[in-house]
Amino acid sequence: MLIVMKMDATPPEVERVVSTIEERGLKANPIPGAQRTAIGITGNLGVVEPAHFESLPGVLEVIQVSHPYKLVSREFQPHDTVVDVAGVKIGGPEIVVIAGPCSVESYEQTLRIAKSVKAAGAHILRGGAFKPRTSPYSFQGLGLEGLEILAKVREETGLPVVTEATDIDVLDQVAEYADMVQIGARNMQNYTLLRRAGRCGRPVFLKRGMNATITELLLAAEYLLDQGNGQVVLCERGIRTFADHTRNTLDVSAVPAVQRISHLPIVCDPSHASGKRHKVLPLARSAIAVGADGIMVEVHDQPDKALSDGPQAILPNELETLMEQARVLAPMVDRSLGALV
Amino acid sequence: MLIVMKMDATPPEVERVVSTIEERGLKANPIPGAQRTAIGITGNLGVVEPAHFESLPGVLEVIQVSHPYKLVSREFQPHDTVVDVAGVKIGGPEIVVIAGPCSVESYEQTLRIAKSVKAAGAHILRGGAFKPRTSPYSFQGLGLEGLEILAKVREETGLPVVTEATDIDVLDQVAEYADMVQIGARNMQNYTLLRRAGRCGRPVFLKRGMNATITELLLAAEYLLDQGNGQVVLCERGIRTFADHTRNTLDVSAVPAVQRISHLPIVCDPSHASGKRHKVLPLARSAIAVGADGIMVEVHDQPDKALSDGPQAILPNELETLMEQARVLAPMVDRSLGALV
Amino acid sequence: MLIVMKMDATPPEVERVVSTIEERGLKANPIPGAQRTAIGITGNLGVVEPAHFESLPGVLEVIQVSHPYKLVSREFQPHDTVVDVAGVKIGGPEIVVIAGPCSVESYEQTLRIAKSVKAAGAHILRGGAFKPRTSPYSFQGLGLEGLEILAKVREETGLPVVTEATDIDVLDQVAEYADMVQIGARNMQNYTLLRRAGRCGRPVFLKRGMNATITELLLAAEYLLDQGNGQVVLCERGIRTFADHTRNTLDVSAVPAVQRISHLPIVCDPSHASGKRHKVLPLARSAIAVGADGIMVEVHDQPDKALSDGPQAILPNELETLMEQARVLAPMVDRSLGALV
Amino acid sequence: MLIVMKMDATPPEVERVVSTIEERGLKANPIPGAQRTAIGITGNLGVVEPAHFESLPGVLEVIQVSHPYKLVSREFQPHDTVVDVAGVKIGGPEIVVIAGPCSVESYEQTLRIAKSVKAAGAHILRGGAFKPRTSPYSFQGLGLEGLEILAKVREETGLPVVTEATDIDVLDQVAEYADMVQIGARNMQNYTLLRRAGRCGRPVFLKRGMNATITELLLAAEYLLDQGNGQVVLCERGIRTFADHTRNTLDVSAVPAVQRISHLPIVCDPSHASGKRHKVLPLARSAIAVGADGIMVEVHDQPDKALSDGPQAILPNELETLMEQARVLAPMVDRSLGALV
Repeated sequence: MLIVMKMDATPPEVERVVSTIEERGLKANPIPGAQRTAIGITGNLGVVEPAHFESLPGVLEVIQVSHPYKLVSREFQPHDTVVDVAGVKIGGPEIVVIAGPCSVESYEQTLRIAKSVKAAGAHILRGGAFKPRTSPYSFQGLGLEGLEILAKVREETGLPVVTEATDIDVLDQVAEYADMVQIGARNMQNYTLLRRAGRCGRPVFLKRGMNATITELLLAAEYLLDQGNGQVVLCERGIRTFADHTRNTLDVSAVPAVQRISHLPIVCDPSHASGKRHKVLPLARSAIAVGADGIMVEVHDQPDKALSDGPQAILPNELETLMEQARVLAPMVDRSLGALV
Repeated sequence: MLIVMKMDATPPEVERVVSTIEERGLKANPIPGAQRTAIGITGNLGVVEPAHFESLPGVLEVIQVSHPYKLVSREFQPHDTVVDVAGVKIGGPEIVVIAGPCSVESYEQTLRIAKSVKAAGAHILRGGAFKPRTSPYSFQGLGLEGLEILAKVREETGLPVVTEATDIDVLDQVAEYADMVQIGARNMQNYTLLRRAGRCGRPVFLKRGMNATITELLLAAEYLLDQGNGQVVLCERGIRTFADHTRNTLDVSAVPAVQRISHLPIVCDPSHASGKRHKVLPLARSAIAVGADGIMVEVHDQPDKALSDGPQAILPNELETLMEQARVLAPMVDRSLGALV
Repeated sequence: MLIVMKMDATPPEVERVVSTIEERGLKANPIPGAQRTAIGITGNLGVVEPAHFESLPGVLEVIQVSHPYKLVSREFQPHDTVVDVAGVKIGGPEIVVIAGPCSVESYEQTLRIAKSVKAAGAHILRGGAFKPRTSPYSFQGLGLEGLEILAKVREETGLPVVTEATDIDVLDQVAEYADMVQIGARNMQNYTLLRRAGRCGRPVFLKRGMNATITELLLAAEYLLDQGNGQVVLCERGIRTFADHTRNTLDVSAVPAVQRISHLPIVCDPSHASGKRHKVLPLARSAIAVGADGIMVEVHDQPDKALSDGPQAILPNELETLMEQARVLAPMVDRSLGALV
Repeated sequence: MLIVMKMDATPPEVERVVSTIEERGLKANPIPGAQRTAIGITGNLGVVEPAHFESLPGVLEVIQVSHPYKLVSREFQPHDTVVDVAGVKIGGPEIVVIAGPCSVESYEQTLRIAKSVKAAGAHILRGGAFKPRTSPYSFQGLGLEGLEILAKVREETGLPVVTEATDIDVLDQVAEYADMVQIGARNMQNYTLLRRAGRCGRPVFLKRGMNATITELLLAAEYLLDQGNGQVVLCERGIRTFADHTRNTLDVSAVPAVQRISHLPIVCDPSHASGKRHKVLPLARSAIAVGADGIMVEVHDQPDKALSDGPQAILPNELETLMEQARVLAPMVDRSLGALV
């Protein structure tokens, strides 16, 4: 932490800051400059909040130097984490494609789409049983029945399944049925849910909130790791900006940013970011090219009849095109796409 | 809903859109224009998603005309809702001031601050027992003990109490102890929590998410009203923007915007919006002047030692100044501040 | 400037940073901490860019400690600047109201509106002669003829005039006719224009760009002061955010933020921020209550027929109401509204 | 344009809107719905502003249906525009790479870097002679001398040159020396400059403003086309968002969005978007993969000594890597990278 004094701060004001630091068992390192004095603080800063210094007389501002996350950082663990989802490895040499419908609507619909995404070469099946919806009047998901459908479809296709736990209420159920538990963007800062997910015994797929900074995303993941669950996949799914030509703005730069700071794998979801089918393939390619560990993409064979988010679902044959493109792209980012399952 | 056709859309394409509309039991109203055709849809649109038309050939875009909320809208209920918090009325002729510490830290601290905010003329006591924190390493609140402290302090001071329910896990407890249940900004789209809060039997204080539009805020409130709870107070507490001179940008324009569309009262929280003590009074005045039904403000008598958010807490004597200013301001917005309790 | 080393930076890496600092004639102040070393740089940092250190091995990040502006800062000039616009003082004890039509449309229209705003008690007349318009097909202003109309109307009413110089091309003309030259939000970073305006011999009314931070606004003003023009009024007119219920989000917190850092006066423009008549009065009150030195507001007596921005113009009688409210509000921020002219 | 009436609008209110529309020579198309009436307006809407209807009694809101741009739209010109920069075609089957230093610092520096970017296979040389800088104390470019250096270097290397015209003052000079004139992000809405650039006789490279929507970008281009200059290249260079891990957020989705609406080519600039060298290659790949017509990238062989933006400049050997990657990527978006020049 660095405390910057005002230009006209008096020596007693500087002295008071120094003694306030020392009272807390920390070391004050004054740096007298040409125009003003700054004071570096060293020692165990775990419990110090800038608050304690900001209101002292003569203080201009307090600058946080170290970041508040630990377990998720590359300084803590230099090597990449590889997350194992029932045998599918995320964060390793292969790019992983997670595909499926927005919502589980019926056994037939889910099986049909699962078969088509498997045929296209996708590695993991997605599908929502519990759906967080902006309006109380929208379709809210099949719930437990949806989880059972996913389990049956997994049995038939062999595809591992990821699905969202919208609340602590349903977390255990979801963890029982799913191979990876998704925490949605709106729940990224639902800390009770994060703590429980950190103890659920399954890998967690954590989506970045629409207004979350990278630091906040990593701190949300820190909640999971802090509970002992290191099997965490981050997901960039678009942030909220002033731009109105897409539902959200896919922040591809989050991928290299996270990879530099953290050892956790990061995947992109171009479907939710764009909200429009015709942008999904370009954005998916973009995500792979920027170096993402995988993509999550919504697929539906009858998007006009989908109960949710039909306009952003690509068709099975578009997924096939995407897989071919991904196969070409992968080597450029020192990856492969894996053999067809 | 209005469907805008491309300039070069063919008559059969227009015809297909019309018949797709009619298949759904709706009425298609084609408007042939100089350059293109638009098609208005009328009938009960409750279950129609734009998705169903966006991907039809010849369609340029689909424009939603009616808003998705109902119960919260002034078209549904023209007169203002007045929320009764243990006798304190929010949304009526008096501006309500909710004040207290960020966190309940101890019985003594809470009582001391409660007495000082009461002496200053505040109407409701705030104080967090369960704290949602960005970092797992920050103070997370006293929990149940905090609720018990709040109840005791209410008994001693007569001030009604509002405190946050961070999750469904603790909602019943919070509803048992508090006079009004707060749903925090990070939980504004925690739909399970909203539904339960809609059945908790207490007024609900719903904070706008940092990235929520007014429509989304109103839809979150719609979840509460849809469960039968019409006693809802909305709260503007700052949105996330590129501006970096405050923690969040207090969007005072949300107040007249909400008041035009909805009958629910709306309060501003200048403490969380600014994150800095020296901006709290100016922003609080700003909120009252724009027409808010009240303000929520954090007060601490020893902010340097506060366990959370000390730098944004104002001192008891600053609250007194604020109350005097509010008293002068109130008549300008056709309000009063009420007699000293 | 503070250089933060990685946790695993080696002593030779630290040494190399130190010597790179010293090669530039600066002083390196290493602060060895528990986990990592930071190095404070002191000396004349005028010409040092973080770039020079960011790419050295072992460096985690470079943090700028001092701000890049000088002349505009309160550290440079502690007392408030008062700007004199043909006798009207902005930044002094009186709140200043600048009012008038968006565009000068004709002599009659301008005179009529000027008389009504004067009767209401406004202090300065606004009106655009050169109009920057998003679309090339919109009304672009009367140009020189507009300036001549403003001059005639000033003669008749005695109201000083502020109008926008959209480019260096017209700056001299504008400076010849106007009592204060406006630099619009879209031109806040038009540096050639700023430099010329800094030498134009008139006070300058500088609007914050829709995406400008406070630091960038102050640096734009620094261009003016650097050219010898200290008569600068800043104007907050709304920033671009995700919020879609107003055209822009009026950032009232910019007022106390600027006042803390800079000695320049700051005014708010609620008309452009909101884009809607019914929000103008609430936002104007909000601006005065937060402590702004004045407000700029668009007034039209026939808004339905206005050639630009009619929907955001208030009517003359609404201005009268606003002036009354401002008169009540002013004492609360230790101001007055001045006698009727 | 669609006028949505309030639910409780009376028949005379509807009638008044209809007659107001007809008075303007337009056709009113009332659509009575279950809950409310909407009125579509058809006819030549060129001169109608929503203002004229928004304030009529009973009107809830006015929705713009058609977009305000014409010449830039694909509806106006279905086929892609190909821009010819001294023989290099942007918007055709080949992806174009524009590379060079941020600033022209000296003849030697520019020649050295130009040779290296040519050797790597880049097609056009970039380099700033006039530099718009946030601070008046930063290096402002060599001006005319810089233009002369660029011209000499072009002669020696054969690379066409693009450089920025920061103002109308220097536009003619820039147009005389450069093969393509750049309009910077901060000048995207400098309409005088746009109009002049529309008559300068050179292709124009128009950067998206940091806070510009796609509609505003296209309207800025419309100013150029309206003056007869159809040789316009758009450039996405990052937008301003809350995200603080990069200088700006590269909005790759702007590429498919623009391509769907407009016939103009669009290029991405990953250097300014990221501000950090280590993100440039990933973002450049991302831009190509999303379908951009080219990339503009800053290259410096001694970035530590660069007079501006050193930290975002890639090294010549990194450009070589990027060119190889682009060569592999190109076929996936049905492009090639062209033979080495």
